[in-house]
Amino acid sequence: MSQRQYAIIGTGAIGGYYGACLQKAGFDVHFLLKSDYFFVKEQGLKIDSCTGNFTLPTVKAYSHPSEIPDCDVVIIALKATQNHILPQILPQVVTQNSVVLLLQNGLGTEEKIAEIVQTPIIGGLCFICANKVAPGHIVHLDYGSVKIAQYSPNQQPCGMTETVKNITQDFQQAGIEVEMSEDLLLTRWEKLAWNIPFNGLSALLQATTAEIMANEGTRSLAKKLVWEVAEAAKSSDRVLSKQYLKTVIERTIKMKPYHTSMKLDRDAKRSLEVEAIFGHPLRLATAKGIPVPRLEMLYHQLTFINQQIQNSAP
Amino acid sequence: MSQRQYAIIGTGAIGGYYGACLQKAGFDVHFLLKSDYFFVKEQGLKIDSCTGNFTLPTVKAYSHPSEIPDCDVVIIALKATQNHILPQILPQVVTQNSVVLLLQNGLGTEEKIAEIVQTPIIGGLCFICANKVAPGHIVHLDYGSVKIAQYSPNQQPCGMTETVKNITQDFQQAGIEVEMSEDLLLTRWEKLAWNIPFNGLSALLQATTAEIMANEGTRSLAKKLVWEVAEAAKSSDRVLSKQYLKTVIERTIKMKPYHTSMKLDRDAKRSLEVEAIFGHPLRLATAKGIPVPRLEMLYHQLTFINQQIQNSAP
Repeated sequence: MSQRQYAIIGTGAIGGYYGACLQKAGFDVHFLLKSDYFFVKEQGLKIDSCTGNFTLPTVKAYSHPSEIPDCDVVIIALKATQNHILPQILPQVVTQNSVVLLLQNGLGTEEKIAEIVQTPIIGGLCFICANKVAPGHIVHLDYGSVKIAQYSPNQQPCGMTETVKNITQDFQQAGIEVEMSEDLLLTRWEKLAWNIPFNGLSALLQATTAEIMANEGTRSLAKKLVWEVAEAAKSSDRVLSKQYLKTVIERTIKMKPYHTSMKLDRDAKRSLEVEAIFGHPLRLATAKGIPVPRLEMLYHQLTFINQQIQNSAP
Repeated sequence: MSQRQYAIIGTGAIGGYYGACLQKAGFDVHFLLKSDYFFVKEQGLKIDSCTGNFTLPTVKAYSHPSEIPDCDVVIIALKATQNHILPQILPQVVTQNSVVLLLQNGLGTEEKIAEIVQTPIIGGLCFICANKVAPGHIVHLDYGSVKIAQYSPNQQPCGMTETVKNITQDFQQAGIEVEMSEDLLLTRWEKLAWNIPFNGLSALLQATTAEIMANEGTRSLAKKLVWEVAEAAKSSDRVLSKQYLKTVIERTIKMKPYHTSMKLDRDAKRSLEVEAIFGHPLRLATAKGIPVPRLEMLYHQLTFINQQIQNSAP
C-alpha cells in the first residue's frame, strides 16, 4: 500500500502538531497557512513536546488552497470560528477520492461540510493540551490522543469503517495515540463534557484548569456543568456514562495547569468558538425541553465576551 | 426639637454623599475616614451631583472612632466587606441614646450589629448611582432615593416607627428623597433583585449596566436572575410582586450607563461584597430547597474572582 498523502487546513496547535507528527513519520504532508505562511515556509515547524522535542526545518507550506496537490486525507484543523471559509477552501482541496477528517470540537460542522463536498467525512476529537506560542512554534504540554469516528448524515453509529481504520493506522504509525469510535455523535458529546465546563470557565474567569479545580465553588460548578452536558446529550439520544463523567473531572484535577485554547483566544482577543461548543448543544437541549440553566448562562456570558472582543477588533 | 447629630462610619460614595447632603442642610455631621482622612480634613468634600454640584470646604473629619462626639444617629456606610471592623468601631461611637442606620446592600448585617450594640437599628437601601472618583470627591450620576425600615430581631415587619419617621424627616430636610418601609426584609430582597443581576454581571463581565442590557443574551440572563431572586425571597416568606420585578428591568434599561460599585471594586482590585449580596441569599434559598442555579453559578464565579483579587493583593 502506498502511503496516504495529507493536507492540513489550518496549521495552528492542532493541525501543526498532528501534521508534524505525520511528516516526521514519513508521510507526505501539505500545510495550508495564513498569517504564519512566510515564516513556516522559511523556517519550518518547531514542536516542543512532552513526548520529545523535534523540528521540521522544511515543510510543504501553501498560502492558497488551489496550490495543494491532490491528497487522500484532508484534515480540517481550523477553529470553528473559521468555518465560514470552508465553502471557498474545500472544493479546491477535496477530490473525489479524498476523505475529510475534521479535528474540531463542538457540534454541527460535519453537516456543513457535507453540504460543500460529497466525500466521506470522519470526525476527530483531540484530547490534547497544546498551544501555538509563536509562528510555526507549537508547545505540546500533555495528553495527545485522538478519537475518530465516521460521520453519517442520519447521525447514527457507523461502526469501524475501513476509512477510520486506515487513518487510525497512519496516526499510530506517526506515534499518535488514536482510538476508534463507532458513534461520532456520542464521542462529540463526550468531548463537550470537558469543553463546556473547562473551555467556558477558563475563558470567562481567565484562569487555568488548575485554578478552577483548586477553588471549591468553581470545582463544584464545573461538576454541575459536566452533569448538565450529560442531560443535554439526551437530546441526541446519547447517554454519557456516570463513570465517564467522573473520569472527566478526575482527569482534569490531575492535568497540568492548562490555559485552554478558549482562554488563550480571549487573552489574544480572538473570536471564541461559542456557537459550536455552547450554542449548538444548548439549542438541541432547549428544543427537547431539557433544562440546562448553567450551560445557557455560560453561553450568554461568553456570547457577551465574544461581542466585546469583536467590538474591540481593529 | 434640637437637630439630630449624625456620625458617618465610612465616607465613600454613599456615606460621603448623604453625609454631605445632611451637613449642607445644617445638620451636625461627623465623618469617620481612613485613607482619605488627611485629604478631607484639609480640603473637605466635593460633590458633583446630577441635582447640582456643591462643595463643603470644611467637614468634621475623624481618623479614630473614639474622637467622634456622641451622635443621635450613627450611619454605617461601609462596604459589607468591611463589616469585620464593626465590633471595634461601634462600641466607641454608639451610645445608649443612639440609633444605628445601616446603609448597605445584602442580607445578614443587622443581625451582626445587634450582637455588638443594644440600640435600635434601621436598615436603609440606597437607590443611587454614585461613585467616589478621588479622595473626598464623589460623583452622583443618577437617582438618589433611600428606603428605610426598622429592624426587628424576629425579622417581622415593624410598621412606621417613630425613629424611622424622624430620620425620614431629617433626610427630606436635606433634600434626599426618602421612602419609609414597614418591612425591612422585604425591602432588602427587593433591592437584591437589582444587586444580584447587575452588580454580579457587571463585575463578572466588566461591563456597564447599559452594555449588559444592550446584549440580547445577557439581558435575558439578567431577567432570569431577577426572577430567581424572587424565588429565593420566598425562603424569607417575602413575595416580590411581578410588577416590581418588571420595574427593576425597565428602570435599568432607562438608567444612564452605569459602572456598578462592584464593577469598580473589581477594576480597583478591591474585595467584592460577595457574601452579603450573593452568599447569604443563596444559603437561605438552598436551606429551603429552592432551586436557584443561576444565583449559585454567579456566586461561585464571583467568589473565584474575589479570591483572585485577594491573592493578587500586596
